[in-house]
Amino acid sequence: MYASVDLGGTTVACALVSADSRIIAEKSIPTQSHEGPPAVLARISQLVIELAREAGEKPAAVGMGVPGLVDMGRGRARFLPNLPTQWRDVPVAETLAPEIGCPVFLLNDARLATLGELVYGHGRSARSMVFFTLGTGVGGGIVIDGKLRLGSLGAAGEIGHQTVVPDGLVCGCGNRGCLETVASGPAITAEGVRLMRSGLAPKLFEITGGEASAVGPAEMAQAAAAGEATVREAILRGARYLGIGAANLVSALHPELIVLGGGVAAIGDVLIDEVRAEMLRRVRMFPADGVRVERSMLADKAGLWGGIALAMRGGAV
Amino acid sequence: MYASVDLGGTTVACALVSADSRIIAEKSIPTQSHEGPPAVLARISQLVIELAREAGEKPAAVGMGVPGLVDMGRGRARFLPNLPTQWRDVPVAETLAPEIGCPVFLLNDARLATLGELVYGHGRSARSMVFFTLGTGVGGGIVIDGKLRLGSLGAAGEIGHQTVVPDGLVCGCGNRGCLETVASGPAITAEGVRLMRSGLAPKLFEITGGEASAVGPAEMAQAAAAGEATVREAILRGARYLGIGAANLVSALHPELIVLGGGVAAIGDVLIDEVRAEMLRRVRMFPADGVRVERSMLADKAGLWGGIALAMRGGAV
Repeated sequence: MYASVDLGGTTVACALVSADSRIIAEKSIPTQSHEGPPAVLARISQLVIELAREAGEKPAAVGMGVPGLVDMGRGRARFLPNLPTQWRDVPVAETLAPEIGCPVFLLNDARLATLGELVYGHGRSARSMVFFTLGTGVGGGIVIDGKLRLGSLGAAGEIGHQTVVPDGLVCGCGNRGCLETVASGPAITAEGVRLMRSGLAPKLFEITGGEASAVGPAEMAQAAAAGEATVREAILRGARYLGIGAANLVSALHPELIVLGGGVAAIGDVLIDEVRAEMLRRVRMFPADGVRVERSMLADKAGLWGGIALAMRGGAV
Repeated sequence: MYASVDLGGTTVACALVSADSRIIAEKSIPTQSHEGPPAVLARISQLVIELAREAGEKPAAVGMGVPGLVDMGRGRARFLPNLPTQWRDVPVAETLAPEIGCPVFLLNDARLATLGELVYGHGRSARSMVFFTLGTGVGGGIVIDGKLRLGSLGAAGEIGHQTVVPDGLVCGCGNRGCLETVASGPAITAEGVRLMRSGLAPKLFEITGGEASAVGPAEMAQAAAAGEATVREAILRGARYLGIGAANLVSALHPELIVLGGGVAAIGDVLIDEVRAEMLRRVRMFPADGVRVERSMLADKAGLWGGIALAMRGGAV
């Protein structure tokens, strides 16, 4: 049995999976990252131990995703931009492994989801793949010749932080005009909220009761499907920037496959089709119509399965 | 002994190199591509044979760069955008090999220059490298884990055709706002000419006698060095876009090394330093100060040495 842990800014998700790849148990708890690393790590080990006790078997290894820079060799979280500052150079593996009683392997969460898609999703049929995680941020991972490419800091794959608008909006990373500023969940829904408040999206208003906090990718997809042209255009605008980001990577690497994962990908075909169309409009130096553009096969479970793959491989990617 | 051939839009360059890597002979002739593939290929084989006769030894293999899409396996030039249309699916290797009397291996010219830099230049000290060729166009190549990555069509590495201005100028490839539209030789010198004609670049006027056709990267570098702020700014503007293009690839791949080759790189430090600075301003998700940004060690001979490396390796990259 193997365990997968996803440490997020608001939620910690854990799953146990049998050696023959059946999900045995799943549970999520709030991260409460303000309590600091020792308290959060203690609750993570309790969570894994509790699930293992219920399953009646200890995991052979844990694969864990962390939202930021990771020292994979030493199993440390180096810098987690979306967590409080005390989360710097935290010895995660060293702390958890003796508690849980098995090895713990760390990887950046977007790269972990890429590994999941590679081993259990669309990646099974491709030797090269670019994977986008579309959520609060835009992350990703790059597979070439069947191998996830991490760079020396495990930081390669930050494809949401390519500049697509040179003098664009300020990004959380400190740069301007990153793909994330125009194609993340918050970027797309902010435009939905603006349209709603400006009286340009009555269907979205009806769906959400006019509540800004109720506007998400799913609600916008629903309004667009109901014929709201303004909301549809907001989705297409994000998709076209994603298509530019995808095209840039197709020009550079000519992968067989582009996969869109994360919550925003749940918008579905209206988004995916426009990403594909814009990619094809942009890549003109060689025929790119053979490059498949797909929605993640694992949906919101790409990270979970990536953790299992990482655990099974003993931390090697 | 090995031969290297570079088929360009205006010039064919050939060199013979000994097994211990000394250049034995070099010669260039006009391409005259309008004469059509058979005539041009006949003159290429004559050129190689003539140089070999003078050197008193036949080459063991020829490595050849071609400006466009190549079918490496079959040694065919598939599509050469800067040559007349009859240059489509031309059996280059099949035609040249029996004439010259040795195997002929083809590769896209920018990838060939990357191979040269990898085997004989800065690439010797790095496992991963992004190489930009800055000339009439902007091309390139990508090295990961010591290997040039070509994709299924040998087209990966078209990093001059990443979009850096979404609604920018029309590019020769058919897309808009490619890096090539703002950072190629013609893009940078066009701004030099505009400044000169608008009376904003008296030093450049003096250097070139006011002749638009005399304005090149070297003349602009000279004017900038003489204190002409407007011309310096035109160079820096191109460099900043190159820095964006470099940053996008650093975010995606985190290579050890970015190398700038081609005629525009001869502008020197004023260009290279700004590319490096802009790259560091843009990559904020992880420390990128370890990424070296260098001018090609081989200058205008990167393609020549790439051809030799390709010939020595029997066409494998």
